Amino acid sequence: MLERNSAGGKRFRPRMVFTAYDALGGDDDDAVAGVGAAFELLHTALIVHDDVIDRDFSRRGIPNVSGSYRDTATTAGLSTPAAEHRGMSAAVIAGDLALTGASRLLMQVRCGGGVQARLLDILDEAIFVSAGGEMVDVELSLSPEVPTVDEILDMERAKTAVYSFEAPLQAGAVLAGAPEAVVQAVGEFGREVGVAYQVVDDLLGVFGTEESTGKTTLGDLREGKRTVLIAHAATTDEWFAIQPFIGKADLSVDEAAHVRARLESCGARSFAESLVEQHARRALDVLDGPEVTDTLRAALSPLVATVLERVR
Amino acid sequence: MLERNSAGGKRFRPRMVFTAYDALGGDDDDAVAGVGAAFELLHTALIVHDDVIDRDFSRRGIPNVSGSYRDTATTAGLSTPAAEHRGMSAAVIAGDLALTGASRLLMQVRCGGGVQARLLDILDEAIFVSAGGEMVDVELSLSPEVPTVDEILDMERAKTAVYSFEAPLQAGAVLAGAPEAVVQAVGEFGREVGVAYQVVDDLLGVFGTEESTGKTTLGDLREGKRTVLIAHAATTDEWFAIQPFIGKADLSVDEAAHVRARLESCGARSFAESLVEQHARRALDVLDGPEVTDTLRAALSPLVATVLERVR
Repeated sequence: MLERNSAGGKRFRPRMVFTAYDALGGDDDDAVAGVGAAFELLHTALIVHDDVIDRDFSRRGIPNVSGSYRDTATTAGLSTPAAEHRGMSAAVIAGDLALTGASRLLMQVRCGGGVQARLLDILDEAIFVSAGGEMVDVELSLSPEVPTVDEILDMERAKTAVYSFEAPLQAGAVLAGAPEAVVQAVGEFGREVGVAYQVVDDLLGVFGTEESTGKTTLGDLREGKRTVLIAHAATTDEWFAIQPFIGKADLSVDEAAHVRARLESCGARSFAESLVEQHARRALDVLDGPEVTDTLRAALSPLVATVLERVR
Repeated sequence: MLERNSAGGKRFRPRMVFTAYDALGGDDDDAVAGVGAAFELLHTALIVHDDVIDRDFSRRGIPNVSGSYRDTATTAGLSTPAAEHRGMSAAVIAGDLALTGASRLLMQVRCGGGVQARLLDILDEAIFVSAGGEMVDVELSLSPEVPTVDEILDMERAKTAVYSFEAPLQAGAVLAGAPEAVVQAVGEFGREVGVAYQVVDDLLGVFGTEESTGKTTLGDLREGKRTVLIAHAATTDEWFAIQPFIGKADLSVDEAAHVRARLESCGARSFAESLVEQHARRALDVLDGPEVTDTLRAALSPLVATVLERVR
């Protein structure tokens, strides 16, 4: 089930590892594949447990681990609560196996002892930061207060951006034997792109199209997801007209259209878009540093364009 | 919270590591402490996630991770469902950190590369087997059928005995540089003692005293826990008089006394006791093998006595 749940994704994190590694002259296909696979499996572990925490039984319309184990139990005649319990239990266990698998894959990469220790540090730090981000996300979602934009950005960075961008890019650089200044620069680049990416996600969750995102654009509003849009809107005079619809489980298409219009008129949409531009700009600035070679710059700058294109 | 939840236990798994290591001539205090701590933290990770799966908010009468996070949320004014959700979420995350921490501790042990690879294999295998045992436990608890004694023994061995006995004893032997035959013998010994220990747990869960076990002796019966006692009783003519009370959430003290009497008269108690004796005997037989030195035998045989004393 884990294999099925980790199949067919965008392989986004391995791509980060490969991009940095290739651009920095790495040529050990087996080693870089191992590091890439470790980050992919970490991603699987984190989304499987995230779904447990959110009590979700599907992801992008397809049954996830919990959903699959729930469904076979339901078919076998179990009651819904018992079947859901089976699903959630299987997902706790599956996430544990994926998490262990991620460390395990990294330990099996053939490289120098110093490089391996450094890679394990990066993975470990990514897990630690992601765990913190996940916990903050839980806390923010339970709090009656609307968080500030900075709280949202910190949470999104910790929960997703570090393990998806910063850490895999750094791991690729470390494996390629890059000097410390380059590893730092690549990490800083990843941090900025990662934050831009998360804010784009917030924008697409409300203003995207179902065709492009693969998920309903009512979801974020209906579940009252804490996003940069909401955090900014809450500081404006129009919040009174938005707030009643945030977290409204049966939000209609017309109500959603109203909320979108208000998020535009109050300036939340353009604020979020300017945040994306700002972090994208900072990412590109990092690439202008003296430690960044032309090859590395040429390899990384398209990532910024890719992120920006998602909202344009 | 993790620190609090891993404090004050019996340090049972580190003791297994130390016992084998010391008896086999190991003298690196730092290294053996690291290996022992890794198994203790693995234990913490597994019970924290086991409590998530069982939706338990306390362990031995004290709030566990979920319970602690639930309680501070309740105090802060959250509704019970929201507070419980916060508790469970924190426990999923805390277990992930403990699991990662276990591998991490083992990686930081200073020992030869070959020894370390072997230690990591042992830990990895223990996690994998425990995950399987946990899943089988979930399946057995949801099935309307009463499992067979062998199914129970296999589940208990996988869920608990491997990571509590077999793996830490083997890890101690490997760290001490013991020959492969000794590592195998120590593992086999651990497997037998571990199974004996689990069957003792089943016995104490029904026939123990609250003073000695620290938990109510109604719990196993009320939750309908699948144990060797139940599996054996289900094969006897007296099952019709026992079954109605197994899993009865409001089982009274008198009804429990009736069930205990029936578990004795049907032979389930003596069957379980003979199983304990049989596995304890097999454990001692392993110690009579030619590869087991006098020192090792002298160090390990008291473990068997300790297990047996718990039910005598």
